[in-house]
Amino acid sequence: MASEAENANQAPDEESIISDFFVPLARDWPGAYGLADDCATIAVAPGHELVIKTDPIRAGVHFFSDDSPADIAWKALAVNVSDLASKAARPVAYTLAISFPEQPSRSWLGDFTAGLSEAQEHFGCGLIGGDTDHATGPMSLAITVLGEVPIGKMVRRVTPSVGDRIFVSGTLGDAALGLRIRANMVDGKKPEQMTDHESLLVDRYLRPKPYLELRSALRAYATAAMDLSDGLGKDLGRMCRASGTGAAVYEPDIPLSDAFMAVAPESLEERRSLISSGDDYEVLCTVRADNVANFVALAASGGVVVTEIGIVRTEPGVTIIDKAGEAQDWAGRGYDHFS
Amino acid sequence: MASEAENANQAPDEESIISDFFVPLARDWPGAYGLADDCATIAVAPGHELVIKTDPIRAGVHFFSDDSPADIAWKALAVNVSDLASKAARPVAYTLAISFPEQPSRSWLGDFTAGLSEAQEHFGCGLIGGDTDHATGPMSLAITVLGEVPIGKMVRRVTPSVGDRIFVSGTLGDAALGLRIRANMVDGKKPEQMTDHESLLVDRYLRPKPYLELRSALRAYATAAMDLSDGLGKDLGRMCRASGTGAAVYEPDIPLSDAFMAVAPESLEERRSLISSGDDYEVLCTVRADNVANFVALAASGGVVVTEIGIVRTEPGVTIIDKAGEAQDWAGRGYDHFS
Repeated sequence: MASEAENANQAPDEESIISDFFVPLARDWPGAYGLADDCATIAVAPGHELVIKTDPIRAGVHFFSDDSPADIAWKALAVNVSDLASKAARPVAYTLAISFPEQPSRSWLGDFTAGLSEAQEHFGCGLIGGDTDHATGPMSLAITVLGEVPIGKMVRRVTPSVGDRIFVSGTLGDAALGLRIRANMVDGKKPEQMTDHESLLVDRYLRPKPYLELRSALRAYATAAMDLSDGLGKDLGRMCRASGTGAAVYEPDIPLSDAFMAVAPESLEERRSLISSGDDYEVLCTVRADNVANFVALAASGGVVVTEIGIVRTEPGVTIIDKAGEAQDWAGRGYDHFS
Repeated sequence: MASEAENANQAPDEESIISDFFVPLARDWPGAYGLADDCATIAVAPGHELVIKTDPIRAGVHFFSDDSPADIAWKALAVNVSDLASKAARPVAYTLAISFPEQPSRSWLGDFTAGLSEAQEHFGCGLIGGDTDHATGPMSLAITVLGEVPIGKMVRRVTPSVGDRIFVSGTLGDAALGLRIRANMVDGKKPEQMTDHESLLVDRYLRPKPYLELRSALRAYATAAMDLSDGLGKDLGRMCRASGTGAAVYEPDIPLSDAFMAVAPESLEERRSLISSGDDYEVLCTVRADNVANFVALAASGGVVVTEIGIVRTEPGVTIIDKAGEAQDWAGRGYDHFS
């Protein structure tokens, strides 16, 4: 019998990939049947309904193929949990379909599933099924996540009303800046040469941490919510367009982290570009003006900082107003998968 | 404004791909919110639980990139519905994540969504969410399908008992033979040059039609069930191994279609290879000996022919017994994504 070390770089077959690496991630969910069945079952708690989201990520688009396997795994789950978090849903289970461009080694799989294990524990959900296969092209990971809400209590995206205040959780632009740092790192700085601020920004890019703690505040007070994945202007534009409203955002109120302030280029133009680049995985939501104080307080009691950045209005489109009171036109920027 | 014809070859952007082509597929499911939200909701009928399956397909592995877009769409949904059918679940909804190697034209998308519409109507489920993006490599389609069963009534895979009779629905080997015909077609016969038998076999490859009508017979009498996707020997081996049993299959009883008999090469070796190649999407199940007649009758009342092909036994492994009573060793063949 070969030693563990000798085996680490071996490529296991499809069945041992599942049994050795993925089955342990399914042990806490009875309806996963130890991944030994063709399907999984989910019994929904009485008075609840399921909330479902599919958001795949791909090497070269959402992560670098040489990112740590644990980080790739974290991000694959986090971007899906982020949607549930913004809808005030509690994650319960997920499926994972991975396509590998080449057979992964035992060592890669071990790191990957360790990251996935860490993420599912953090988010409180379990693996219940999936598929692994082998295709040319970039590695891709398609997760479908399932969550629970009391029936009719999912916070919708298209339901803001004129006069509602616009909020975001956390800070914006960090992940976009982290991506830039990470991209230069390839032939530039090594992780151990990064400053604390730079490390934090790269971590914001690699390991989004959706605020599930915001659930009760959203359920109680949000009139509409979504997660920020394609950039503030673009995502806010979608929220408003679908409801026949528009938005004014006051630029100086957009929350930025100390790390962002310290590391981002001085140029306002470049900062705007970072803030609208996407990958934030923060919650964007609207709250009736008379509920603002309660919303902020309930969010804070869950440990989440939310910041009011603007107002929903009748005039269509998203207008960003700078500190001089001038309307700026950078709202439309953002990430388009086909641009 | 350009005419429809002028627009047919244009590549639409991400938002119009969704609004023009996918939103119509979501109109019958209120919890899809017209695909205008980030997540969908599913309210499960009282006394029921959800059954879930993710099975992606990729160009070059599960279909040819020049297959008709409508056929690709059908197959993407059918291979997932096939799992539900074998578990006695009723499909209700699905999500679809597509990755395109290049921007699809309006004409390609129109054909694709027409095929998907046909398939979802045939199978009785609706689109509730998904994602489109753009990546190098082969086109891939990851569907997650959700179905409903009375709580605890999903037919499991790993639960056959010694003495149970082994059944398959329909006929085996057709799709594998259809694939061969389809593969030669690239620089060989055009569709209009194919015989009726050849067309039927190619259709079996392109458009699997899982027998949802088998649901009540499976629920009433099957002790275990799964769908045949990787080949009889391989899939039966999985079913038995997991339950600590084995199987004997009597080769002359394996059901073959007239088309298969007419078109397949004479060589027994080649026929065995086709029968064990996979892509059948038929149901494999086990039934207690004293329920065999009832099972066959109830299946027939739903219009489905099921055939007894063998018996579950204590001796591990799958043995195929030929017409001379000799054990053959082709049971282990089948499709492995990493071989």
